[in-house]
Amino acid sequence: MSVILSINAGSSSVKVSVFLSELRGSPRQIAEAQVSGLTAPPAKLTYKRAGADSGIKNKEVEKPIKAQGDAFSLLLDTLVGDADLKEISTRDAIFIACHRIVHGAGYKDSQLITPDTYHHLEELSELAPLHNSAALAIVDACMKELPQASNVACFDTVFHTTIPAHIYTYPIDPDVAKKNQLRKYGFHGLSYSFITRSVAEFLGKEAKELNMIALHLGSGASACAIKGGHSLDTSMGLTPLAGLPGATRSGSIDPSLVFHYTSTAGKLAPASTEQLHISEAEQILNKESGWKALTGTTDFGSIASSDDPQHKLAFDLFVDRICGFVGSYYVSLEGQVDALVFAGGIGEKSGKLRRAVVQRAACLGFAISDSANGQEITDIVQDIGAEGAKHRVLVCQTDEQFEMARMCATKEDLWGDA
Amino acid sequence: MSVILSINAGSSSVKVSVFLSELRGSPRQIAEAQVSGLTAPPAKLTYKRAGADSGIKNKEVEKPIKAQGDAFSLLLDTLVGDADLKEISTRDAIFIACHRIVHGAGYKDSQLITPDTYHHLEELSELAPLHNSAALAIVDACMKELPQASNVACFDTVFHTTIPAHIYTYPIDPDVAKKNQLRKYGFHGLSYSFITRSVAEFLGKEAKELNMIALHLGSGASACAIKGGHSLDTSMGLTPLAGLPGATRSGSIDPSLVFHYTSTAGKLAPASTEQLHISEAEQILNKESGWKALTGTTDFGSIASSDDPQHKLAFDLFVDRICGFVGSYYVSLEGQVDALVFAGGIGEKSGKLRRAVVQRAACLGFAISDSANGQEITDIVQDIGAEGAKHRVLVCQTDEQFEMARMCATKEDLWGDA
Repeated sequence: MSVILSINAGSSSVKVSVFLSELRGSPRQIAEAQVSGLTAPPAKLTYKRAGADSGIKNKEVEKPIKAQGDAFSLLLDTLVGDADLKEISTRDAIFIACHRIVHGAGYKDSQLITPDTYHHLEELSELAPLHNSAALAIVDACMKELPQASNVACFDTVFHTTIPAHIYTYPIDPDVAKKNQLRKYGFHGLSYSFITRSVAEFLGKEAKELNMIALHLGSGASACAIKGGHSLDTSMGLTPLAGLPGATRSGSIDPSLVFHYTSTAGKLAPASTEQLHISEAEQILNKESGWKALTGTTDFGSIASSDDPQHKLAFDLFVDRICGFVGSYYVSLEGQVDALVFAGGIGEKSGKLRRAVVQRAACLGFAISDSANGQEITDIVQDIGAEGAKHRVLVCQTDEQFEMARMCATKEDLWGDA
Repeated sequence: MSVILSINAGSSSVKVSVFLSELRGSPRQIAEAQVSGLTAPPAKLTYKRAGADSGIKNKEVEKPIKAQGDAFSLLLDTLVGDADLKEISTRDAIFIACHRIVHGAGYKDSQLITPDTYHHLEELSELAPLHNSAALAIVDACMKELPQASNVACFDTVFHTTIPAHIYTYPIDPDVAKKNQLRKYGFHGLSYSFITRSVAEFLGKEAKELNMIALHLGSGASACAIKGGHSLDTSMGLTPLAGLPGATRSGSIDPSLVFHYTSTAGKLAPASTEQLHISEAEQILNKESGWKALTGTTDFGSIASSDDPQHKLAFDLFVDRICGFVGSYYVSLEGQVDALVFAGGIGEKSGKLRRAVVQRAACLGFAISDSANGQEITDIVQDIGAEGAKHRVLVCQTDEQFEMARMCATKEDLWGDA
C-alpha cells in the first residue's frame, strides 16, 4: 500500500487528505489536515487522523503563514510529526501528491507534472489567474520538498471535455476565440466524476447508461447535465464565474453590467502580478458579489434560516437560478432523467433549499419526501425523493480528494514496480 | 380620426408607420415608410401606402443622410409629398408621434415627452448608449419639425416592470446596484405586449388568465415567461445584450470573457461621444459577435438553409440557447403553460428553427404539426401545434408600431378635445 496526498488549494486555505492505496485499488483515507485563514491571519490548523478520537481543530498557527507554500510545509510537518500516523514517518513515504487544478483548458486527462507540464500550467494561469495560482504554488512546494514523489495534476475541466461544439462555443469571432482559447470549459469536474460513479452504483446502473441533472452547490455552485455518464452541458463557462451565483461570485449577469458598475472595470486589480492579469471587473464579480454582497455573510445556512428580507431575497434568488438550470437541462436531456442530484456543502446540508428547488420543479416529475429530506445525510448517496414520483431525487456526499486519489490509483504509468 | 406616426429608430434605419385612430379606437395603418443603410451609404428609401398597388422599394437617396434626423425629415417629406395620402396633406395633420425607446429604466408607463422628460431620457441613455440615442435624435427632430404634435415615448422595458425582485436583482453590491440602477429590465416589451393581447384573443381567454412562453426571435432575440398576462421573467437584462445571441450580439457569455478577448475591454470605443460612454467590450459584444461573427452573415434564413459547418454550428447553437430558456421558463411557470409562441422575423419565417425547438422540447408536452408549420403565416396568430399535444404551439406576427399606436389611442390625456 502506498501513500497518496490529495491536495486542494484555495485562495485562503490548503487542504490535504491522506490515502492509502495500491494500483487499481480503492483508496482508504487515513488522515486529513487543513490550514485556513490565509487571507485573514492568524492562519488556523485543523488535523484529524482516521479512527482517532480527537484531533486539532482551528488551532491558531504561531509562525507566519504568508502563502500557500508555507501552509503546505506546515501540513507536511504535522503529518510527519504525528508519531501515531505510522504510514508517514518520513517525507519519503509519500508516493504520489495529486493536485486539484481548477483550469485544465485543453487537457483531456490528469497529467504527471514534469517541468514541461509545469511550464504549460503556468501559461494556463492566464486563463484563470484567480483560480490556478494557489494550486501552482503548492505544486512548486511539492517539487522541492517531496522530490521522490510523483506530482499529478487533476483538472476540474476534464470531465466536461465531452460537451459538444454547439454548446461549448461562444457566438464571438472564431479567430479570437481560437487564438485566446475562449470557450465553455466547465468546472467542478472532479466532483461530477465522483457523483456520476456513486449514483450509478447506487442505482445499479452502468455509468454509461446514467442520465442526470447534478447540482454541486457550495460557496462555488454549478449545475451539470450528464448524459450517458458524460457531461453534456454545465453552467460554468470559460471561468468559474458564469452560471449560478456563489458566496462571492455574481454568476451570469448581463455581460455589460460591470462597465456600468465601475468606470475602471478594465484596469488591473491590486491582486494582479506581473505574470497574472486580473481586471477590476473580475475581482468585483468573483470576490465582491454573490450572497455575501447581498446579505453580508458567506454562510448559506444562516441565510436559509433567516427572516431578514435581504436574506430571503438571496435565498429566493438562488432557488430561482438553480431551477432555471434544472428546467434547461431537463430539456437538454429530452426528459430522460434518472435523477436530480444535490451535492456540495449546501446541497448536502440545506434541506430547505432542496425542498424549495424540488417543489418548484414538480411539473417535471420531481417530488421530495419531507421525512427523507429531513434525515441527516450519512451515506454517500441517499434517496430523498417521494415514492411514486416520475424521477428520483438524491443527495450525494461528494469527495473531490477521494476522486483524485482514485484517478491516481488507476494510472498504471505512475506505479511502475510499486 | 387622427394621424398617429409610430416611429422605430435603429442604429442604421428609421421606420415610420402611419395610423388613423380615434380615442379608444383600434388604429388602422394607412402607410409605411423606411430609410435604411444609414451606416452603409447610400441610404435607401422604401415607401408603401395601404391599398396601393406598388410603392417605392430600396430607392437610393440622392442627398446625404448623415443621421437619424435627416432620415426622419426625408420620411416626413415623402409622406407629405404623396398627394394620394390625403390624411397627411401638411405636417400639421400629424396629431401624435410616438417613439419606440428601448430603455425606459424606472418608467412604469409610456410618457408624454415634455422638456423635463426629454432631459431625463437623455440621462437614461447612459444606461443604454447603443440603444436609446437613435430614438432620441428623432424625438429631437420631431419636437422641432412637428411643434403641434404630441410626442410620446413608448418603452420596451415597461412590460417587464412586473418581474419580481428575486428575479430582477443581480447578486452584486446592493448600494452600487441602487446608485447605478443596475437590475434586470428586459426589452422587446412592446412586442410581448402585442403578443399577449393577440394570443389571449386567439385562445378566447382573458389576458390575465394567460400563461405562455413567448419567443421574440429577430436580429435581436429574447424569451419571456408570461404569467397571468404579465412578464415574470425575460432573457435580456440590464441591457439587450444578455440572454440569447442575436445577429451581432453575443448574448449571455462568461462575464469575464471579454477581458480575455482584448486587453482594452474597458477603454472607450470610437463610437463614444462626450455624453455617451461605450466601452470596447460593449462594442465587441453588441456589434461584432452573434451569428454574423460565426458565419459572416446576419441573414438567419441563409444560415438555416446552409450545409456549411459554421452555419450548422450557428443554427444548433441558437436552438440550444432557445431551448434552455424554454425549459427554464416552463419551470418558472410551474408547467401551467397555455402556449409556446414564436414571433419576430425569424420566429415568424423559419419553420426549420421552430421545428427544431419544438422537437427538442417534446418532453415538456409540446408538439408541432409539420403541415401547419409548413404553411405561410398570414394571420396575426396561427396554430402550428400537433393535435392532442399537452400545450399549444403558436406563431404570432408581432407589430411593435401598431402596439405603440394602440397605447396612444388609450391615453385620454393625449386627446383632449380631439
